[in-house]
Amino acid sequence: MSVNEQILLKSYPKGMPTREDFEYKTVPIPSLEEGEVLVRTIYLSVDPYMRGRMSSAKSYVAPFSLNEVIEGGIVGEVVESKSERYQAGDKVTGMLGWQRYNAVNEKLIRKVDDRIAPLSTYLSVLGLTGLTAYFGLLDIGKPKDGETVVVSGAAGAVGMVVGQIAKIKGARVVGIAGSKEKNKYLEEELGFDASINYKEVDNIRRALKEACPNGIDVYFDNVGGAISDAAISLLNDHARVPVCGAISAYNITSLQEDLGPRVQSALVKTRALMKGFIVSDYSSQFKEAAADLGKWLVEGKLTYKETITEGFENIPNAFLGLFKGQNIGKQLVKVSE
Amino acid sequence: MSVNEQILLKSYPKGMPTREDFEYKTVPIPSLEEGEVLVRTIYLSVDPYMRGRMSSAKSYVAPFSLNEVIEGGIVGEVVESKSERYQAGDKVTGMLGWQRYNAVNEKLIRKVDDRIAPLSTYLSVLGLTGLTAYFGLLDIGKPKDGETVVVSGAAGAVGMVVGQIAKIKGARVVGIAGSKEKNKYLEEELGFDASINYKEVDNIRRALKEACPNGIDVYFDNVGGAISDAAISLLNDHARVPVCGAISAYNITSLQEDLGPRVQSALVKTRALMKGFIVSDYSSQFKEAAADLGKWLVEGKLTYKETITEGFENIPNAFLGLFKGQNIGKQLVKVSE
Repeated sequence: MSVNEQILLKSYPKGMPTREDFEYKTVPIPSLEEGEVLVRTIYLSVDPYMRGRMSSAKSYVAPFSLNEVIEGGIVGEVVESKSERYQAGDKVTGMLGWQRYNAVNEKLIRKVDDRIAPLSTYLSVLGLTGLTAYFGLLDIGKPKDGETVVVSGAAGAVGMVVGQIAKIKGARVVGIAGSKEKNKYLEEELGFDASINYKEVDNIRRALKEACPNGIDVYFDNVGGAISDAAISLLNDHARVPVCGAISAYNITSLQEDLGPRVQSALVKTRALMKGFIVSDYSSQFKEAAADLGKWLVEGKLTYKETITEGFENIPNAFLGLFKGQNIGKQLVKVSE
Repeated sequence: MSVNEQILLKSYPKGMPTREDFEYKTVPIPSLEEGEVLVRTIYLSVDPYMRGRMSSAKSYVAPFSLNEVIEGGIVGEVVESKSERYQAGDKVTGMLGWQRYNAVNEKLIRKVDDRIAPLSTYLSVLGLTGLTAYFGLLDIGKPKDGETVVVSGAAGAVGMVVGQIAKIKGARVVGIAGSKEKNKYLEEELGFDASINYKEVDNIRRALKEACPNGIDVYFDNVGGAISDAAISLLNDHARVPVCGAISAYNITSLQEDLGPRVQSALVKTRALMKGFIVSDYSSQFKEAAADLGKWLVEGKLTYKETITEGFENIPNAFLGLFKGQNIGKQLVKVSE
């Protein structure tokens, strides 16, 4: 542990990010101030929303600064402590830098327990990803017993949790994903009632209509684009659309590349609701929600999959892969044991 | 009163409706069943939403049937009664046919009092129009003191009430309308803080941005189209968008004619809410709302304008004029004294 490696954002990507937008740097391991701990990165989370921070445009989180270490979700081990709350060996999680070692104030991390669940789950089903699914679906989507819930990006980190919670709530669940393997996973392992491979159907609207003979009551939108156009055109009266993300539009360079049918007519006809959200708006309720997720996990009602890329050097590749749909479930990078 | 005149829907309009889509018919005045009254039409309401019923497509109200009398809001006088609840001379309102005389069951109308307010107001500011503004703004928009409320179609029947209620609630109000005369009315008579003539500005987004230096907290959407694209791009965090109508899209013949920037990215960035609504969803709360509107009217906090076209024969023209923006305030037709 003599040196620290970091990944910095070198340039704001134009369109699809490339390896050239990232820069590796080797620096000394920082020394600790009072109240800080040194965390060795074990797992690191790469998420589609981070693309939004790789831009100078205003969004709900501040842009990443150029030539600074990129920040994301990390689970790691305390290797040195100047905090009374933590000691070496503790496992912790927080929003930390993409580097092998983070010196961080004790207030910015929290302990996790690998005897309860594998460490990686604190970045996936028990972490912000699971909480995102939980609040978007239950606070905005509010699925009722017997209703039809459609989720796009269904085999992604958030989507797979959304579908399973919807099943727990008694809904009929239809997932939209982009490969046979993903669809098989949704139907056979997660218990989705139906799934659609959007890359293989001629007409996504017709496929959705067939898969949803009673229309759509909740459309959990992870992707935007033409898939969402189709779903919105099939909403039932008083339907709800939690808008979690729009991965299809994250790499466009102009609004002109993201044109679709305007939603107003559909919303008036159905009196439907669309609402954007981010998980941090619900931070005061994280504890209860995490308890629910943990309970479902223990009861076997909630299962999960993670795609784990090995090696610090592969972090940018894992991130870029999100936009090619190469992951099933949560995409993580394992940096050390 | 020997004969009755009616207006029937002859064909579902393709695109913009024309006079040829309507047919006049002269029939005997109907005789009454037990429990019915005969109502002579005095004022008749023409509304943009009726365009949606002139189509065989599914919407929130059933389509008008071809070769049947068109139905809309009417205020009239009871001229004959086989009901114990009503007697000749009573003034009533209800959803009745576009004809000089309606035979109607006592349960489908309610009394109005022309000593409290002019009869016409029961179709405008005290009628479904005022209630539409009330519920859309207060139940979905929820403006707070000091927030910025933008309303499109601001000089229309609903828009002018929306803006005034928003002022009552302490908001800064910006109206978008389509003529100098309308803007003058909004600013000088209704007390709007600013207004935009969308037909005269080069760039609606820039004009809105200048008129809303603190962004937009509530966008009351009556029009859809490019005006709404601009407003949605300027929403503040946690903004609310009651979607009342989309008059710009009512006469399109294909969804391809109503393309705009998809809203998902904007909704996620701001965590904004968009929700369609129709006033009848709130019918259980009409009484309290009408009491509020009446109180504001009496207190002089709420004023209104009506554009009154004279003559039964001019009903279709008055309806068609809605899509040319020729009315200020509520468009009514006066059929008899």
